[in-house]
Amino acid sequence: MKLISFSSNGRESWGAVSGDRVIDLGAALEGKYPLLQDFIGSEDYARREALVAGREGTLRLADVTLLPVITRPEKIVLLVRNYLDHHNEVVAAGLKREIPKFPPLFLRVWRSQIGHEAPIVRPAISDQLDWEGELAVIIGKGGRHIAESDALSHVAGYACYNDASVREFQFHAQQIAAGKNFVGTGSFGPWMVTADEVGDPSQLKLQTRLNGELVQDSNTSNMIFGVPRLINYISTIFDLVPGDVIVTGTPAGTGWTVKPPRFLRPSDVVEVEIEKIGVLRNGVVDEATA
Amino acid sequence: MKLISFSSNGRESWGAVSGDRVIDLGAALEGKYPLLQDFIGSEDYARREALVAGREGTLRLADVTLLPVITRPEKIVLLVRNYLDHHNEVVAAGLKREIPKFPPLFLRVWRSQIGHEAPIVRPAISDQLDWEGELAVIIGKGGRHIAESDALSHVAGYACYNDASVREFQFHAQQIAAGKNFVGTGSFGPWMVTADEVGDPSQLKLQTRLNGELVQDSNTSNMIFGVPRLINYISTIFDLVPGDVIVTGTPAGTGWTVKPPRFLRPSDVVEVEIEKIGVLRNGVVDEATA
Repeated sequence: MKLISFSSNGRESWGAVSGDRVIDLGAALEGKYPLLQDFIGSEDYARREALVAGREGTLRLADVTLLPVITRPEKIVLLVRNYLDHHNEVVAAGLKREIPKFPPLFLRVWRSQIGHEAPIVRPAISDQLDWEGELAVIIGKGGRHIAESDALSHVAGYACYNDASVREFQFHAQQIAAGKNFVGTGSFGPWMVTADEVGDPSQLKLQTRLNGELVQDSNTSNMIFGVPRLINYISTIFDLVPGDVIVTGTPAGTGWTVKPPRFLRPSDVVEVEIEKIGVLRNGVVDEATA
Repeated sequence: MKLISFSSNGRESWGAVSGDRVIDLGAALEGKYPLLQDFIGSEDYARREALVAGREGTLRLADVTLLPVITRPEKIVLLVRNYLDHHNEVVAAGLKREIPKFPPLFLRVWRSQIGHEAPIVRPAISDQLDWEGELAVIIGKGGRHIAESDALSHVAGYACYNDASVREFQFHAQQIAAGKNFVGTGSFGPWMVTADEVGDPSQLKLQTRLNGELVQDSNTSNMIFGVPRLINYISTIFDLVPGDVIVTGTPAGTGWTVKPPRFLRPSDVVEVEIEKIGVLRNGVVDEATA
Protein backbone atom coordinates (compact mmCIF):
# COMPACT_ATOMS: atom_id res chain seq x y z
CA MET A 1 0.00 0.00 0.00
CA LYS A 2 1.09 3.55 -0.73
CA LEU A 3 0.29 6.07 2.00
CA ILE A 4 0.54 9.84 1.61
CA SER A 5 0.14 13.07 3.52
CA PHE A 6 -1.46 15.76 1.38
CA SER A 7 -3.33 19.01 1.29
CA SER A 8 -6.37 19.70 -0.83
CA ASN A 9 -8.17 23.04 -0.95
CA GLY A 10 -6.25 24.23 2.09
CA ARG A 11 -7.17 21.20 4.19
CA GLU A 12 -4.46 18.78 5.38
CA SER A 13 -5.17 15.08 5.46
CA TRP A 14 -3.62 11.72 4.69
CA GLY A 15 -4.68 8.63 2.84
CA ALA A 16 -3.93 5.74 0.53
CA VAL A 17 -3.12 5.90 -3.16
CA SER A 18 -5.33 3.74 -5.38
CA GLY A 19 -4.26 3.99 -9.00
CA ASP A 20 -4.64 7.66 -9.93
CA ARG A 21 -7.01 8.33 -7.02
CA VAL A 22 -6.59 9.08 -3.31
CA ILE A 23 -8.66 7.45 -0.59
CA ASP A 24 -8.90 10.21 2.02
CA LEU A 25 -8.52 8.11 5.17
CA GLY A 26 -8.06 11.14 7.39
CA ALA A 27 -11.59 12.20 6.48
CA ALA A 28 -13.04 8.68 6.22
CA LEU A 29 -11.94 7.86 9.77
CA GLU A 30 -13.49 11.16 10.88
CA GLY A 31 -10.34 12.71 12.26
CA LYS A 32 -9.60 9.81 14.61
CA TYR A 33 -6.00 10.07 13.41
CA PRO A 34 -5.19 13.69 12.55
CA LEU A 35 -1.82 12.79 11.01
CA LEU A 36 -0.50 9.75 9.16
CA GLN A 37 2.01 9.27 11.97
CA ASP A 38 -0.90 8.89 14.42
CA PHE A 39 -2.41 6.15 12.26
CA ILE A 40 0.89 4.33 11.85
CA GLY A 41 1.20 4.04 15.61
CA SER A 42 -2.37 2.82 16.13
CA GLU A 43 -3.90 -0.61 16.36
CA ASP A 44 -5.86 0.15 13.20
CA TYR A 45 -2.65 0.21 11.19
CA ALA A 46 -2.47 -3.58 11.09
CA ARG A 47 -5.93 -3.74 9.50
CA ARG A 48 -5.27 -1.03 6.92
CA GLU A 49 -6.21 -3.29 4.01
CA ALA A 50 -9.65 -3.84 5.50
CA LEU A 51 -10.04 -0.11 6.15
CA VAL A 52 -9.30 0.70 2.53
CA ALA A 53 -11.33 -2.13 0.99
CA GLY A 54 -14.48 -0.90 -0.70
CA ARG A 55 -13.71 2.80 -0.18
CA GLU A 56 -13.67 5.09 -3.14
CA GLY A 57 -10.83 7.33 -4.12
CA THR A 58 -12.67 10.63 -3.86
CA LEU A 59 -9.72 12.78 -4.95
CA ARG A 60 -7.47 12.66 -7.97
CA LEU A 61 -3.83 12.13 -7.06
CA ALA A 62 -2.89 14.77 -9.64
CA ASP A 63 -5.10 17.33 -7.85
CA VAL A 64 -3.70 17.09 -4.33
CA THR A 65 -0.51 18.71 -3.03
CA LEU A 66 1.76 16.05 -1.61
CA LEU A 67 3.29 16.94 1.76
CA PRO A 68 6.34 15.35 3.38
CA VAL A 69 5.24 11.74 3.93
CA ILE A 70 5.39 12.22 7.69
CA THR A 71 4.61 15.87 8.25
CA ARG A 72 5.81 16.31 11.83
CA PRO A 73 8.11 13.47 12.81
CA GLU A 74 9.37 13.77 16.33
CA LYS A 75 12.83 12.79 15.16
CA ILE A 76 14.57 12.65 11.82
CA VAL A 77 17.85 10.81 12.31
CA LEU A 78 20.20 10.88 9.34
CA LEU A 79 23.38 9.09 8.40
CA VAL A 80 26.68 10.48 7.14
CA ARG A 81 28.85 8.46 4.77
CA ASN A 82 26.86 5.25 5.07
CA TYR A 83 27.56 4.08 1.50
CA LEU A 84 30.96 2.65 0.70
CA ASP A 85 30.94 4.25 -2.77
CA HIS A 86 30.21 7.69 -1.25
CA HIS A 87 32.85 7.19 1.45
CA ASN A 88 35.38 6.54 -1.30
CA GLU A 89 34.45 9.67 -3.27
CA VAL A 90 34.67 11.81 -0.12
CA VAL A 91 38.17 10.52 0.54
CA ALA A 92 39.06 11.12 -3.12
CA ALA A 93 37.76 14.69 -2.75
CA GLY A 94 40.42 15.28 -0.11
CA LEU A 95 38.67 14.69 3.22
CA LYS A 96 40.63 12.46 5.56
CA ARG A 97 38.06 9.95 6.73
CA GLU A 98 38.16 6.34 7.87
CA ILE A 99 35.39 3.85 7.28
CA PRO A 100 33.12 4.45 10.27
CA LYS A 101 33.03 1.82 12.99
CA PHE A 102 29.69 3.10 14.27
CA PRO A 103 26.82 4.71 12.36
CA PRO A 104 27.57 8.46 12.17
CA LEU A 105 24.34 10.30 13.08
CA PHE A 106 22.99 13.80 12.84
CA LEU A 107 19.50 15.28 13.09
CA ARG A 108 17.15 17.34 10.96
CA VAL A 109 14.08 19.24 12.16
CA TRP A 110 10.73 18.60 10.49
CA ARG A 111 10.26 22.24 9.61
CA SER A 112 13.10 21.90 7.06
CA GLN A 113 11.06 19.38 5.04
CA ILE A 114 9.09 19.63 1.81
CA GLY A 115 7.00 17.18 -0.22
CA HIS A 116 7.08 15.80 -3.74
CA GLU A 117 6.99 18.51 -6.44
CA ALA A 118 7.48 21.32 -3.90
CA PRO A 119 10.51 23.45 -4.70
CA ILE A 120 13.81 22.96 -2.94
CA VAL A 121 14.87 26.42 -1.79
CA ARG A 122 18.37 27.68 -2.55
CA PRO A 123 19.14 30.09 0.30
CA ALA A 124 20.11 33.64 -0.61
CA ILE A 125 23.23 33.34 1.55
CA SER A 126 24.91 30.49 -0.37
CA ASP A 127 24.98 29.00 -3.87
CA GLN A 128 26.38 25.67 -2.66
CA LEU A 129 23.12 23.72 -2.63
CA ASP A 130 23.66 20.02 -3.35
CA TRP A 131 21.51 16.90 -3.72
CA GLU A 132 21.63 13.61 -1.78
CA GLY A 133 19.29 10.82 -2.82
CA GLU A 134 18.53 8.50 0.10
CA LEU A 135 16.27 5.74 1.38
CA ALA A 136 14.03 6.86 4.27
CA VAL A 137 12.82 4.33 6.82
CA ILE A 138 9.61 5.14 8.69
CA ILE A 139 9.26 3.60 12.13
CA GLY A 140 5.93 1.93 12.81
CA LYS A 141 6.51 0.34 16.18
CA GLY A 142 8.58 2.32 18.65
CA GLY A 143 10.89 1.08 21.34
CA ARG A 144 14.36 1.11 22.75
CA HIS A 145 17.16 -1.44 22.60
CA ILE A 146 15.69 -3.10 19.53
CA ALA A 147 17.66 -6.18 18.47
CA GLU A 148 18.91 -6.35 14.90
CA SER A 149 17.03 -9.61 14.43
CA ASP A 150 13.76 -7.88 15.36
CA ALA A 151 14.44 -4.50 13.77
CA LEU A 152 12.59 -4.84 10.48
CA SER A 153 9.37 -5.64 12.34
CA HIS A 154 9.54 -2.07 13.68
CA VAL A 155 9.45 -0.56 10.17
CA ALA A 156 6.13 0.72 8.81
CA GLY A 157 7.48 1.52 5.37
CA TYR A 158 9.96 3.25 3.11
CA ALA A 159 10.13 6.42 1.05
CA CYS A 160 12.58 8.44 -1.02
CA TYR A 161 14.45 11.34 0.55
CA ASN A 162 16.53 14.15 -0.89
CA ASP A 163 18.73 15.37 1.95
CA ALA A 164 19.57 18.58 0.08
CA SER A 165 22.57 20.19 1.74
CA VAL A 166 24.09 23.65 1.81
CA ARG A 167 27.73 22.56 1.61
CA GLU A 168 29.21 25.90 2.60
CA PHE A 169 27.33 25.81 5.92
CA GLN A 170 27.91 22.07 6.29
CA PHE A 171 31.64 22.79 6.39
CA HIS A 172 31.42 25.84 8.67
CA ALA A 173 32.20 23.52 11.55
CA GLN A 174 32.95 19.89 12.25
CA GLN A 175 29.27 19.43 13.11
CA ILE A 176 27.26 19.44 9.89
CA ALA A 177 23.76 20.20 11.23
CA ALA A 178 23.93 23.82 10.01
CA GLY A 179 24.16 22.78 6.37
CA LYS A 180 21.46 20.15 6.75
CA ASN A 181 18.58 22.12 8.20
CA PHE A 182 17.85 25.02 5.88
CA VAL A 183 14.16 25.68 5.40
CA GLY A 184 12.91 23.99 2.23
CA THR A 185 15.70 21.46 1.77
CA GLY A 186 14.61 18.05 3.09
CA SER A 187 12.40 16.45 0.46
CA PHE A 188 10.47 13.38 1.60
CA GLY A 189 8.13 11.45 -0.66
CA PRO A 190 6.31 10.97 -2.85
CA TRP A 191 4.67 8.38 -0.59
CA MET A 192 5.47 5.68 1.89
CA VAL A 193 5.34 2.15 0.53
CA THR A 194 4.47 -0.22 3.33
CA ALA A 195 7.18 -2.63 4.41
CA ASP A 196 5.27 -5.73 3.30
CA GLU A 197 5.46 -4.52 -0.32
CA VAL A 198 9.16 -3.61 -0.20
CA GLY A 199 10.50 -6.69 1.52
CA ASP A 200 14.28 -6.67 1.97
CA PRO A 201 15.56 -3.05 2.12
CA SER A 202 19.14 -4.11 1.45
CA GLN A 203 18.73 -4.82 -2.27
CA LEU A 204 17.12 -1.71 -3.74
CA LYS A 205 18.44 0.17 -6.73
CA LEU A 206 18.79 3.90 -5.95
CA GLN A 207 19.28 6.56 -8.62
CA THR A 208 19.34 10.34 -8.64
CA ARG A 209 18.86 12.36 -11.83
CA LEU A 210 19.62 16.03 -12.34
CA ASN A 211 17.63 17.44 -15.27
CA GLY A 212 17.31 13.89 -16.54
CA GLU A 213 21.04 13.12 -16.29
CA LEU A 214 21.98 10.20 -14.05
CA VAL A 215 24.21 11.55 -11.23
CA GLN A 216 23.81 8.86 -8.54
CA ASP A 217 23.49 5.20 -9.48
CA SER A 218 23.87 2.76 -6.63
CA ASN A 219 22.10 0.15 -4.57
CA THR A 220 21.21 -0.03 -0.89
CA SER A 221 23.46 -3.10 -0.79
CA ASN A 222 26.36 -0.61 -0.66
CA MET A 223 25.32 0.63 2.78
CA ILE A 224 28.06 0.25 5.38
CA PHE A 225 25.43 -0.17 8.12
CA GLY A 226 22.21 -1.81 6.97
CA VAL A 227 18.74 -0.91 8.20
CA PRO A 228 18.65 -3.50 11.05
CA ARG A 229 21.95 -2.27 12.50
CA LEU A 230 20.84 1.35 12.17
CA ILE A 231 17.63 0.70 14.09
CA ASN A 232 19.57 -1.24 16.70
CA TYR A 233 22.17 1.51 17.20
CA ILE A 234 19.72 4.41 17.10
CA SER A 235 17.37 2.72 19.58
CA THR A 236 20.28 2.28 21.99
CA ILE A 237 20.28 6.07 22.31
CA PHE A 238 16.80 7.30 21.39
CA ASP A 239 13.36 6.13 22.41
CA LEU A 240 11.86 5.50 18.98
CA VAL A 241 8.17 6.30 18.42
CA PRO A 242 5.84 5.71 15.46
CA GLY A 243 6.52 8.15 12.64
CA ASP A 244 10.19 8.64 13.48
CA VAL A 245 12.28 8.72 10.33
CA ILE A 246 15.73 7.30 9.66
CA VAL A 247 17.39 8.64 6.53
CA THR A 248 20.02 6.12 5.66
CA GLY A 249 22.73 8.09 3.85
CA THR A 250 23.60 8.84 0.25
CA PRO A 251 25.67 6.91 -2.30
CA ALA A 252 28.39 8.28 -4.59
CA GLY A 253 27.56 11.06 -7.04
CA THR A 254 26.98 14.16 -4.94
CA GLY A 255 27.74 17.51 -6.59
CA TRP A 256 30.45 18.85 -4.29
CA THR A 257 32.80 15.89 -4.80
CA VAL A 258 33.20 16.34 -8.56
CA LYS A 259 35.71 18.79 -10.05
CA PRO A 260 34.64 21.44 -10.66
CA PRO A 261 31.85 21.06 -8.09
CA ARG A 262 28.33 21.13 -9.40
CA PHE A 263 25.55 22.78 -7.42
CA LEU A 264 21.81 23.19 -7.81
CA ARG A 265 20.45 26.29 -9.53
CA PRO A 266 16.96 27.69 -10.00
CA SER A 267 14.94 25.73 -12.57
CA ASP A 268 16.97 22.56 -12.04
CA VAL A 269 14.92 19.42 -11.44
CA VAL A 270 16.16 16.61 -9.19
CA GLU A 271 14.64 13.15 -9.13
CA VAL A 272 15.39 10.43 -6.59
CA GLU A 273 14.19 7.01 -7.69
CA ILE A 274 14.27 3.91 -5.53
CA GLU A 275 13.26 0.46 -6.70
CA LYS A 276 9.86 -0.72 -5.44
CA ILE A 277 9.17 2.77 -4.03
CA GLY A 278 8.94 5.36 -6.79
CA VAL A 279 10.27 8.71 -7.93
CA LEU A 280 10.59 11.83 -5.77
CA ARG A 281 10.83 14.95 -7.92
CA ASN A 282 11.58 18.55 -6.93
CA GLY A 283 12.44 21.70 -8.78
CA VAL A 284 14.76 24.35 -7.36
CA VAL A 285 13.96 28.00 -6.66
CA ASP A 286 15.85 30.87 -5.12
CA GLU A 287 14.82 31.97 -1.67
CA ALA A 288 12.42 34.88 -1.86
CA THR A 289 14.01 38.01 -0.46
CA ALA A 290 12.25 41.18 0.52
CA MET B 1 8.76 36.24 36.51
CA LYS B 2 9.63 32.57 36.88
CA LEU B 3 7.65 30.21 34.66
CA ILE B 4 7.58 26.43 35.01
CA SER B 5 6.17 23.32 33.43
CA PHE B 6 5.11 20.79 36.04
CA SER B 7 3.03 17.76 36.84
CA SER B 8 0.87 17.36 39.89
CA ASN B 9 -1.15 14.24 40.67
CA GLY B 10 -0.56 12.92 37.18
CA ARG B 11 -1.80 16.09 35.49
CA GLU B 12 0.59 18.20 33.38
CA SER B 13 0.33 21.96 33.51
CA TRP B 14 2.42 25.12 33.60
CA GLY B 15 2.44 28.26 35.66
CA ALA B 16 4.27 30.99 37.51
CA VAL B 17 6.29 30.65 40.70
CA SER B 18 5.25 33.01 43.48
CA GLY B 19 7.50 32.55 46.52
CA ASP B 20 7.04 28.94 47.59
CA ARG B 21 3.75 28.61 45.70
CA VAL B 22 2.75 27.89 42.11
CA ILE B 23 0.06 29.81 40.24
CA ASP B 24 -1.39 27.16 37.93
CA LEU B 25 -1.89 29.26 34.82
CA GLY B 26 -2.59 26.25 32.62
CA ALA B 27 -5.69 25.57 34.71
CA ALA B 28 -6.54 29.24 35.41
CA LEU B 29 -6.65 30.00 31.68
CA GLU B 30 -8.89 26.94 31.24
CA GLY B 31 -6.61 25.08 28.89
CA LYS B 32 -6.39 27.91 26.37
CA TYR B 33 -2.66 27.21 26.25
CA PRO B 34 -2.01 23.50 26.82
CA LEU B 35 1.76 23.97 27.08
CA LEU B 36 3.98 26.80 28.31
CA GLN B 37 5.39 27.07 24.77
CA ASP B 38 1.87 27.83 23.48
CA PHE B 39 1.53 30.67 25.98
CA ILE B 40 4.97 32.10 25.19
CA GLY B 41 3.97 32.46 21.55
CA SER B 42 0.61 34.06 22.29
CA GLU B 43 -0.51 37.66 22.53
CA ASP B 44 -1.31 37.06 26.20
CA TYR B 45 2.37 36.57 26.96
CA ALA B 46 3.01 40.32 26.92
CA ARG B 47 0.38 40.84 29.61
CA ARG B 48 1.56 38.02 31.84
CA GLU B 49 1.98 40.29 34.87
CA ALA B 50 -1.68 41.27 34.65
CA LEU B 51 -2.71 37.62 34.25
CA VAL B 52 -0.86 36.65 37.40
CA ALA B 53 -1.90 39.65 39.50
CA GLY B 54 -4.38 38.74 42.18
CA ARG B 55 -4.26 35.00 41.50
CA GLU B 56 -3.45 32.66 44.33
CA GLY B 57 -0.72 30.10 44.31
CA THR B 58 -2.89 27.04 44.75
CA LEU B 59 -0.02 24.54 44.80
CA ARG B 60 3.14 24.35 46.86
CA LEU B 61 6.27 24.47 44.70
CA ALA B 62 7.73 21.69 46.85
CA ASP B 63 4.78 19.44 45.99
CA VAL B 64 4.89 19.57 42.20
CA THR B 65 7.20 17.64 39.90
CA LEU B 66 9.13 20.05 37.72
CA LEU B 67 9.29 19.07 34.05
CA PRO B 68 11.73 20.33 31.43
CA VAL B 69 10.92 24.07 31.23
CA ILE B 70 9.69 23.64 27.67
CA THR B 71 8.36 20.12 27.48
CA ARG B 72 8.16 19.61 23.70
CA PRO B 73 10.30 22.20 21.94
CA GLU B 74 10.20 21.83 18.20
CA LYS B 75 13.93 22.40 18.08
CA ILE B 76 16.74 22.26 20.60
CA VAL B 77 19.83 23.73 18.96
CA LEU B 78 23.05 23.33 20.94
CA LEU B 79 26.54 24.71 20.66
CA VAL B 80 29.89 22.93 20.71
CA ARG B 81 32.97 24.65 22.12
CA ASN B 82 31.39 28.06 22.47
CA TYR B 83 33.42 29.07 25.54
CA LEU B 84 37.01 30.10 25.09
CA ASP B 85 38.03 28.42 28.38
CA HIS B 86 36.43 25.13 27.26
CA HIS B 87 38.00 25.37 23.81
CA ASN B 88 41.38 25.68 25.49
CA GLU B 89 40.85 22.64 27.72
CA VAL B 90 39.70 20.55 24.75
CA VAL B 91 42.89 21.44 22.88
CA ALA B 92 44.94 20.68 26.02
CA ALA B 93 43.20 17.27 26.18
CA GLY B 94 44.68 16.45 22.78
CA LEU B 95 41.96 17.30 20.27
CA LYS B 96 43.21 19.38 17.34
CA ARG B 97 40.66 22.16 17.12
CA GLU B 98 40.77 25.76 15.94
CA ILE B 99 38.68 28.54 17.40
CA PRO B 100 35.46 28.27 15.40
CA LYS B 101 34.71 30.96 12.83
CA PHE B 102 31.03 30.08 12.83
CA PRO B 103 28.84 28.76 15.65
CA PRO B 104 29.18 24.95 15.64
CA LEU B 105 25.65 23.52 15.96
CA PHE B 106 24.08 20.19 16.73
CA LEU B 107 20.58 19.11 17.75
CA ARG B 108 18.91 17.29 20.60
CA VAL B 109 15.42 15.78 20.60
CA TRP B 110 12.95 16.76 23.31
CA ARG B 111 12.42 13.19 24.36
CA SER B 112 15.97 13.15 25.76
CA GLN B 113 15.08 15.83 28.30
CA ILE B 114 14.36 15.74 32.04
CA GLY B 115 13.39 18.36 34.61
CA HIS B 116 14.86 19.65 37.85
CA GLU B 117 15.41 16.90 40.45
CA ALA B 118 14.66 14.12 37.97
CA PRO B 119 17.52 11.64 37.72
CA ILE B 120 20.03 11.79 34.90
CA VAL B 121 20.22 8.25 33.52
CA ARG B 122 23.59 6.60 33.03
CA PRO B 123 23.04 4.17 30.15
CA ALA B 124 23.86 0.52 30.73
CA ILE B 125 26.04 0.52 27.63
CA SER B 126 28.60 3.11 28.77
CA ASP B 127 30.06 4.49 31.99
CA GLN B 128 31.33 7.68 30.30
CA LEU B 129 28.50 10.00 31.37
CA ASP B 130 29.69 13.58 31.79
CA TRP B 131 28.15 16.93 32.82
CA GLU B 132 27.95 20.21 30.89
CA GLY B 133 26.46 23.24 32.64
CA GLU B 134 25.00 25.70 30.11
CA LEU B 135 22.77 28.71 29.67
CA ALA B 136 19.55 27.92 27.76
CA VAL B 137 17.83 30.63 25.74
CA ILE B 138 14.09 30.24 25.13
CA ILE B 139 12.74 31.88 21.98
CA GLY B 140 9.59 33.94 22.49
CA LYS B 141 9.11 35.51 19.10
CA GLY B 142 9.96 33.36 16.09
CA GLY B 143 11.30 34.38 12.74
CA ARG B 144 14.03 33.99 10.21
CA HIS B 145 16.97 36.20 9.30
CA ILE B 146 16.88 37.94 12.66
CA ALA B 147 19.43 40.75 12.91
CA GLU B 148 21.87 40.72 15.83
CA SER B 149 20.65 44.15 16.86
CA ASP B 150 17.09 42.83 17.18
CA ALA B 151 17.91 39.34 18.48
CA LEU B 152 17.38 39.83 22.21
CA SER B 153 13.82 41.04 21.57
CA HIS B 154 13.10 37.49 20.33
CA VAL B 155 14.07 35.93 23.67
CA ALA B 156 11.32 35.01 26.14
CA GLY B 157 13.68 33.99 28.91
CA TYR B 158 16.57 31.94 30.19
CA ALA B 159 17.09 28.72 32.12
CA CYS B 160 19.87 26.40 33.25
CA TYR B 161 20.72 23.33 31.17
CA ASN B 162 22.84 20.28 31.86
CA ASP B 163 23.76 18.88 28.44
CA ALA B 164 24.84 15.57 29.98
CA SER B 165 26.85 13.64 27.41
CA VAL B 166 27.84 10.03 26.88
CA ARG B 167 31.42 10.70 25.76
CA GLU B 168 32.07 7.24 24.39
CA PHE B 169 29.18 7.61 21.93
CA GLN B 170 30.02 11.26 21.30
CA PHE B 171 33.36 10.12 19.93
CA HIS B 172 32.00 7.16 17.93
CA ALA B 173 31.98 9.46 14.90
CA GLN B 174 32.84 12.98 13.91
CA GLN B 175 29.17 13.88 14.38
CA ILE B 176 28.43 14.04 18.11
CA ALA B 177 24.63 13.71 18.11
CA ALA B 178 24.80 10.07 19.25
CA GLY B 179 26.42 11.00 22.57
CA LYS B 180 24.09 13.93 23.10
CA ASN B 181 20.67 12.33 22.79
CA PHE B 182 20.47 9.48 25.27
CA VAL B 183 17.13 9.24 27.01
CA GLY B 184 17.26 10.99 30.39
CA THR B 185 20.31 13.18 29.80
CA GLY B 186 19.22 16.72 28.88
CA SER B 187 18.26 18.49 32.08
CA PHE B 188 16.42 21.79 31.63
CA GLY B 189 15.25 23.94 34.51
CA PRO B 190 14.38 24.55 37.19
CA TRP B 191 12.37 27.36 35.59
CA MET B 192 12.54 30.00 32.94
CA VAL B 193 13.32 33.49 34.22
CA THR B 194 11.79 36.01 31.84
CA ALA B 195 14.22 38.12 29.82
CA ASP B 196 13.18 41.40 31.48
CA GLU B 197 14.47 40.09 34.83
CA VAL B 198 17.76 38.75 33.46
CA GLY B 199 18.77 41.70 31.30
CA ASP B 200 22.13 41.27 29.56
CA PRO B 201 22.84 37.53 29.03
CA SER B 202 26.54 38.16 28.39
CA GLN B 203 27.54 38.84 32.01
CA LEU B 204 26.19 35.90 34.00
CA LYS B 205 28.25 33.81 36.39
CA LEU B 206 27.87 30.10 35.60
CA GLN B 207 28.96 27.34 37.99
CA THR B 208 28.60 23.57 38.05
CA ARG B 209 29.04 21.56 41.23
CA LEU B 210 29.52 17.81 41.54
CA ASN B 211 28.52 16.56 44.98
CA GLY B 212 29.07 20.12 46.23
CA GLU B 213 32.53 20.48 44.69
CA LEU B 214 32.97 23.30 42.20
CA VAL B 215 33.89 21.77 38.80
CA GLN B 216 32.90 24.53 36.37
CA ASP B 217 33.35 28.19 37.30
CA SER B 218 32.97 30.62 34.45
CA ASN B 219 30.91 33.47 33.08
CA THR B 220 28.81 33.82 29.94
CA SER B 221 31.21 36.62 29.00
CA ASN B 222 33.59 33.82 27.90
CA MET B 223 31.28 32.78 25.07
CA ILE B 224 32.96 32.91 21.67
CA PHE B 225 29.60 33.67 20.02
CA GLY B 226 27.21 35.66 22.19
CA VAL B 227 23.44 35.19 22.28
CA PRO B 228 22.64 37.83 19.59
CA ARG B 229 25.07 36.26 17.09
CA LEU B 230 23.74 32.79 17.86
CA ILE B 231 20.15 33.84 17.17
CA ASN B 232 21.27 35.60 14.00
CA TYR B 233 23.19 32.59 12.68
CA ILE B 234 20.62 29.98 13.69
CA SER B 235 17.75 31.97 12.15
CA THR B 236 19.67 32.13 8.86
CA ILE B 237 19.11 28.37 8.65
CA PHE B 238 16.06 27.53 10.74
CA ASP B 239 12.64 29.12 10.96
CA LEU B 240 12.52 29.82 14.71
CA VAL B 241 9.21 29.43 16.54
CA PRO B 242 8.15 30.23 20.11
CA GLY B 243 9.48 27.67 22.55
CA ASP B 244 12.54 26.78 20.50
CA VAL B 245 15.58 26.39 22.72
CA ILE B 246 19.19 27.40 22.11
CA VAL B 247 21.66 25.81 24.50
CA THR B 248 24.72 28.01 24.35
CA GLY B 249 27.65 25.71 25.13
CA THR B 250 29.62 24.77 28.21
CA PRO B 251 32.66 26.39 29.83
CA ALA B 252 35.83 24.67 31.05
CA GLY B 253 35.60 21.96 33.68
CA THR B 254 33.99 18.99 32.00
CA GLY B 255 34.88 15.56 33.34
CA TRP B 256 36.46 13.96 30.27
CA THR B 257 39.14 16.62 29.87
CA VAL B 258 40.79 16.04 33.26
CA LYS B 259 43.37 13.30 33.82
CA PRO B 260 42.28 10.77 34.79
CA PRO B 261 38.82 11.52 33.37
CA ARG B 262 36.00 11.84 35.83
CA PHE B 263 32.55 10.54 34.98
CA LEU B 264 29.17 10.55 36.68
CA ARG B 265 28.15 7.62 38.82
CA PRO B 266 24.90 6.59 40.49
CA SER B 267 24.13 8.70 43.58
CA ASP B 268 26.21 11.64 42.32
CA VAL B 269 24.44 14.99 42.41
CA VAL B 270 25.12 17.70 39.79
CA GLU B 271 24.08 21.31 40.21
CA VAL B 272 24.20 23.97 37.51
CA GLU B 273 23.87 27.49 38.91
CA ILE B 274 23.52 30.61 36.78
CA GLU B 275 23.39 34.12 38.17
CA LYS B 276 19.92 35.69 38.15
CA ILE B 277 18.38 32.34 37.13
CA GLY B 278 18.84 29.73 39.85
CA VAL B 279 20.11 26.24 40.53
CA LEU B 280 19.28 23.16 38.45
CA ARG B 281 19.90 19.98 40.44
CA ASN B 282 19.85 16.33 39.34
CA GLY B 283 20.95 13.07 40.83
CA VAL B 284 22.30 10.21 38.74
CA VAL B 285 20.90 6.69 38.44
CA ASP B 286 21.79 3.67 36.40
CA GLU B 287 19.49 2.74 33.53
CA ALA B 288 17.00 0.11 34.62
CA THR B 289 17.65 -3.14 32.80
CA ALA B 290 15.31 -6.08 32.51
